[in-house]
Formats: sequence, structure tokens, C-alpha cells
Amino acid sequence: MTSPLDPLLDAVVDGRTKGYPQDQPPLPLRSVASRGWSLRRGELGMPAALLRRSALDQNQAFMREFLRRTGASLCPHGKTTMAPQLFHRQLGDGAWGITLATAQEARVGVAYGVPRILLANQLVLPGEVAWAQGALDADPGLDLLCLVDSVEGVERMAGLARGRRPLPVLVELGYPGGRTGARGVEEALLVARAARASPRLAVRGVECFEGLFQSADAAADAARVRRLLADLVALAARLEGEGLLGAEELVVSAGGSAYFDLVAEAWERQAFRGPARLVLRSGCTLTHDSGLYQRLVARLEARLPERWRAPRSLEPAIEIWSAVLSRPEPGLALLGMGKRDVAHDVDLPQPRRWLRAGGPPPAAAPGSWRIDRLNDQHAYLRLPPEAPLRPGDLVGCGVSHPCTTLDKWQLLFAVDDEDRVVEAIRTFF
Amino acid sequence: MTSPLDPLLDAVVDGRTKGYPQDQPPLPLRSVASRGWSLRRGELGMPAALLRRSALDQNQAFMREFLRRTGASLCPHGKTTMAPQLFHRQLGDGAWGITLATAQEARVGVAYGVPRILLANQLVLPGEVAWAQGALDADPGLDLLCLVDSVEGVERMAGLARGRRPLPVLVELGYPGGRTGARGVEEALLVARAARASPRLAVRGVECFEGLFQSADAAADAARVRRLLADLVALAARLEGEGLLGAEELVVSAGGSAYFDLVAEAWERQAFRGPARLVLRSGCTLTHDSGLYQRLVARLEARLPERWRAPRSLEPAIEIWSAVLSRPEPGLALLGMGKRDVAHDVDLPQPRRWLRAGGPPPAAAPGSWRIDRLNDQHAYLRLPPEAPLRPGDLVGCGVSHPCTTLDKWQLLFAVDDEDRVVEAIRTFF
Repeated sequence: MTSPLDPLLDAVVDGRTKGYPQDQPPLPLRSVASRGWSLRRGELGMPAALLRRSALDQNQAFMREFLRRTGASLCPHGKTTMAPQLFHRQLGDGAWGITLATAQEARVGVAYGVPRILLANQLVLPGEVAWAQGALDADPGLDLLCLVDSVEGVERMAGLARGRRPLPVLVELGYPGGRTGARGVEEALLVARAARASPRLAVRGVECFEGLFQSADAAADAARVRRLLADLVALAARLEGEGLLGAEELVVSAGGSAYFDLVAEAWERQAFRGPARLVLRSGCTLTHDSGLYQRLVARLEARLPERWRAPRSLEPAIEIWSAVLSRPEPGLALLGMGKRDVAHDVDLPQPRRWLRAGGPPPAAAPGSWRIDRLNDQHAYLRLPPEAPLRPGDLVGCGVSHPCTTLDKWQLLFAVDDEDRVVEAIRTFF
Repeated sequence: MTSPLDPLLDAVVDGRTKGYPQDQPPLPLRSVASRGWSLRRGELGMPAALLRRSALDQNQAFMREFLRRTGASLCPHGKTTMAPQLFHRQLGDGAWGITLATAQEARVGVAYGVPRILLANQLVLPGEVAWAQGALDADPGLDLLCLVDSVEGVERMAGLARGRRPLPVLVELGYPGGRTGARGVEEALLVARAARASPRLAVRGVECFEGLFQSADAAADAARVRRLLADLVALAARLEGEGLLGAEELVVSAGGSAYFDLVAEAWERQAFRGPARLVLRSGCTLTHDSGLYQRLVARLEARLPERWRAPRSLEPAIEIWSAVLSRPEPGLALLGMGKRDVAHDVDLPQPRRWLRAGGPPPAAAPGSWRIDRLNDQHAYLRLPPEAPLRPGDLVGCGVSHPCTTLDKWQLLFAVDDEDRVVEAIRTFF
């Protein structure tokens, strides 16, 4: 049986790719797992990006349970991992589709058989619209929705569209001071009416992104998110009331990885007449992290009503491992990991575990170990003079912000709880 | 005639790769240039990373002239671009070799026929040492030098080495509070003696990196750099005096892209008895930038003695272009370019030019346009309400820090002064 992933899995990977062991021969991606490479035996190239499979499983179970209890659908943002193998893991888990941010990302999704893509931006370039039309016309089974956020954007997209099928669009609702999106319900309605008026576009619903409210004041953030989501549901009702939708179910989409509970809460108050679907787009819950999203999800769990509370929480699945290159001063170790290997836009990476190849299992990194600086290819790890790290030892770090960590890797290793590679995963950034 | 770049040039690239036009068929990399894609006609995928060829030429001429006047050799740091096509451009221009930072990067260099690699780190992993030994044994013409910075590091590398040829090493000199490198001349001498004592290693010279002194006080930075470089030359003389070197010429290597003038200045005072070569490693002069290195090179040019002054300066070669996705408020345009496309560790990108596809040639971006925020995939461009930008217009930005910009791209476009693609360049990050 063929799979749309076959070309990807058959492609050969070798030591030119970061993380691949330098002393191993080239292998088709699908054959890597059979080699049983072990982090603990020092068999991976360094630095290396690891995803703990048990944490991925746990995080998927968490979201499945949340979706079951709230009735929401999930179209996880694939930009986080850009890994078709993980897209199919998510689709196999019941995802409604995969969200992607750009035409290039959507192209990757289509190339590897993702049947429904929510392209969470307005398409503004002739080549992008031509590609989207071609993809829709070539595969009647493909669903590819994109956003419109202005009358001008509608006119531009409609003017560029030339295909047999109309382009499915969601009207993007924004807010003053925000990112893209029509500023308020009335402005969004103008956009929806313009789209409805074009035979080249098919209005399928509404969309917003509430995830940018991240101040120090959790309660104020939540209040702003609730107002935006109430507007989104009101906008959807106006679309339905004005007959601006086609025959398909109404799609209402919101929800990054910080406030999906508030999206479900807003949805509870909806009273649409026709069929409607709430589509969350949370992209970071699969891998979670040890920083930004750990804090945001802690807030989320504190907000969760009893009926939505899951027995277990999200777990950080990502660790970036690197070797100690030097211990040039008693309180300093240099790691072979830098800005090119790990996120540094929110917090610096945090040491979690360390090991000496062939020695005992990884030990927890003491709380006194701290990375306080990154160069392009080095991390400065401050630690007590008596800390045992020496050149060649390996240190695994948690990250803050999966999206700006994973994009630094073309090859990820999924590992089991003994840190053996169980899957080699390719990304397309 | 075959070239070591053939496999790379023959590989097919398509719209799965960022920057490739979505409406174009797949092409072998070498065939892209023949298509004559024009930024000005809107024929590139967005976002896209452009290198202006005339600026690359100008920057190479600048360095050639500097090398001619100072007698230094250049082994430019290839980590900046990780583009074998650009490595060969540099080798063709007389580069002594290519510097690389990690075993994976060196592997890429070897794979694409770079004959001499300065691996500017200590190799600490068995797989890395095994690979380096294998590469040296497989190709008698390959020169592959790496660093040692501690007696422990020497013992580790010597213990792992198993090849027919000894591993060539440079002794790395550091300084208190710095990164890797033995702390001072005396400690570095201990390292050199340990390496000399091992038949598995061949001491070829000394190395330091002076580029991390980047405070607000240019004079204090320069004084610190001069002290370190004086120590480096003194260390090299001690190695020669003690007979710690083999039969080959002494290599003395220093010089990032900020202080290569001070390296040449320190070299003028050397008085070695045997043959010796000064090897600069400046990696950012090829592309230059519009921020960090623009400031650092302005300092450098202000320091240059008359006899080393070149008629023209370095020019920024990199522009990241993206499309206006939305103009949701009068003073705001959202660009389809974010943290995943452009450096954000030193400064945010700066708008330089803009165009409307098929319209007049690009216009300079007014000084009032300013990017004040990046999300993962968006830039917030603040501009006067009357600014003409609308969805689908294209904006080209200068960057600050090439190393953390280019690593976000697998495909770069070299363009001529009419913004037509003249070469498609693959990277290996």
C-alpha cells in the first residue's frame, strides 16, 4: 500500500543534515528507526533535536479529551513542526485538517497528502492564487480554505482567481492594535458581503487569532480574549443571518495554544440555526514546551471549569541535546548549541538532563545550572565549579517556544523513554 | 567536466522550498537562473532571500585588496552562508580554505569538494573524530584542521583518534570571561605540549576569536582585542621556540568580521624564524549587512591606516523580500515575513525598498517606515497613513546579522542590479 509520505520516507538522509550521526552511513529516512540509535550510548550527532514519543502521546490524549468534552474540532497549526509525518499523526488522531501559514507551507501539506488545509492568511500574490486554484482543481477531495480581511483583499483575490472551483474563504476578524483582520464586526461584514458578491470566492465562515494577548496581567488578557471571541461568534451569526454563507456548514475558527478553553467557552453561547463547526487551531499543544507555553497553559488549566479538566496535563516533548565542547573556567561549560539550534526569542534554553555516553542513565540537571548567553553556535552554561561536566558529556535542554526551535532543524528524532530513536522526522521550513 | 557541486546543482527544487515561486514547475537548481525570474515582475515566491551579486563582487574585491595589502590569507567562515556554491566562489577568489563550526558543517564542506577546512571547535564526540579521521584517510589532498583548548580535550581527541594521518590541530587561545580557549599563554602552552606529545595529533599553529568584544566603547573593545592578539602572536612564537610544531608552516588564525584590521596590525610585529601564515576567518564580509556589521565595519574603517584603505567599502548584499498581506489600520502594514525568515537577535529588519509588481522600479523605503515587531510569520510595518503600500506590494528589508538570517533559508537567490535571478543557491543548515 502506498502512502503520500512514501517519497519523504524513501529519501536518503546523511551526515550533511544536523543531528545525523557523522559515523553512520546514509539511510532512507524510514530505515533510521530500525538502527536503534541511542542517545545514552552517544550515538546521535550533536546537536540533536529530540521529541519524546510518550509526551507526544500524552499531549494528544490531553487534546482528544478536551475536544471530546467541548465538541470542538482541531485543525492544528502545522507551521509549528512543518513535519508531514506529524501532520499525519494528527490527522490519524481525528484532526479536521492542518492549519498552515503560507502558500509554501500549504504546498508542503498538499504534497504529502493533507486533505484539508486552513491557510491562515490572505493570499495576495498571483502565483499563490494560481497554485491554490490549481491544487483545488486537480483534486476534488482537497479542501483548502484561506482568509480574507479587507474588501481590497477580496477584490484582489477574486481578480486573480481563474479556477473551476471558487476559493473557499473565512473572513478574518481582527481588533484595533492587533495584527491582520478586519477591525470589528461591522468592517468584517463589509468584507463578507464583498466576498459573497464574487462568484470566485465561497464564504465558509469566520476566523480570528486571539493568541497575541500575552501581558503580565492574566485576567486582563483573558477579558480581552473573551471580548474578541464574543465578537467572532456574533460575526458568524450575522453572516448566517444575512445569508452570506454557502450551503456547507459554517466554520468558526479561533484558538492558538494559550486560550483554546476560552474559545470553547465562547462557543457554548452560540445559537446558529444551521450546522456549524468550531475549529481550534492550537499548534503547540503537540510538543508543548518548557517555557512560554508552559506558563500560558498553566494559566489555561487554572481557568478550566471542572467539567473540562483532564486527569493529566501537557508535557514538554522537545529537548535539544548538545555536547560539552569545553570547560574553560571552573564555573563555565560551553555547549555546541547556539542561536541556530534553539529558540531565543522568549527565554534561553534550560538544562534539564545530562549524561556521559555509556554511563548511567541521564541525570536531572541541577537547578543551579543556567544558560545565560547564546552565540550563533555556542551556549554558555554557568554551573558550580564542582559540577561534573567535562568535554564530550551531553546536556539536554528544554525550550521556550516550539515554533522558533523546530524551524532550526530539518531532522527531528522521536525517542522512547530510554532515549532510543523510534522515528526520524523530516521538516520543511 | 564534472564539479563537486554537480550533485547539488542537479537536485530538483520546487515550491516546497521557501522562496520558490508557487506557480513554477520543479527545476534542477542549475536551471533556475536560465528562467530569468524577476523580482520586479513579481515572479518570486514570498518571502524570498536575495543576495545582490554586484554587492558580493564588491565585497570580495574589498577583501582581496585588504589581503593584498596586508599579506594575510583568508579562510572565510562558511557557517554564515553554509552554501557550497558560495564556498567555491570564495575558493575561486583565492581563499586558503573554508572555516566551519561543527562536524556537520565540515561534512557539508567535504561533500562538496572544499579542499581545506578549518573546523573552529574542539571535536569531542567519537563519531565526529571517526568521521574526521575517515575523511583525512580517504583523501590525501584534504586538509582538515580543528582546535584543542585543554589538556583534557587533547587527551580525549588523541584517545579517540585511530586513523593513518595524525589530526591537524590549532591550539585555541581564550581569555578570562571569554568563550572557549585556554585562558592565557601559559595554559595554552600546556595544551600545545600535550598535543605535541601525542602521535595522533599534529600541532599546526594557534587560533583565537577576538570578535566577541562588542561593547558601546569602541576604543576599549579595540584595546582588548589588541591585547588578545598580542598574546596570540606571543603564543605562536613560544610554540616555534619550543619546537612544538611539525614541519609545515606555522598557522596563526584569528579575525572575525569586526577586527580583521587589528589582526593584520598584530601580525606586522611578528618575527617568526620559519614560514608562517596569517589566516583570517572573516565570514560576514561576503554578504555584509545593514545593521550589526555595518556598525562594526564602520568602526573598522575608521581605524584603518592610510596604507590599507580601499577605495570602496563593503555593501550590504542581503535583502529579505516579503509581500504586504494586509493594511488593516492607516499606519500599519503586515508583511508576510517573521522571526522564521529574518534575524531578530540584534536588531529588527529595516525596510529598504518597495515595489508593485509590474510597476516602476523599486523605490527607496522612506525613513519613516519602521518594523517594530515580528511574530513567527509576520512583521508589523509602521508607516504614515498616506503611504501607498497595499496588499500584494513587495517590501525588501535589510538585515542585522547575516548568520541568523541566512540560516532561515534553504534557497537563496542571487540577483543582478535589475533584480533578476542569476543564480539559485542552496544552503545546508
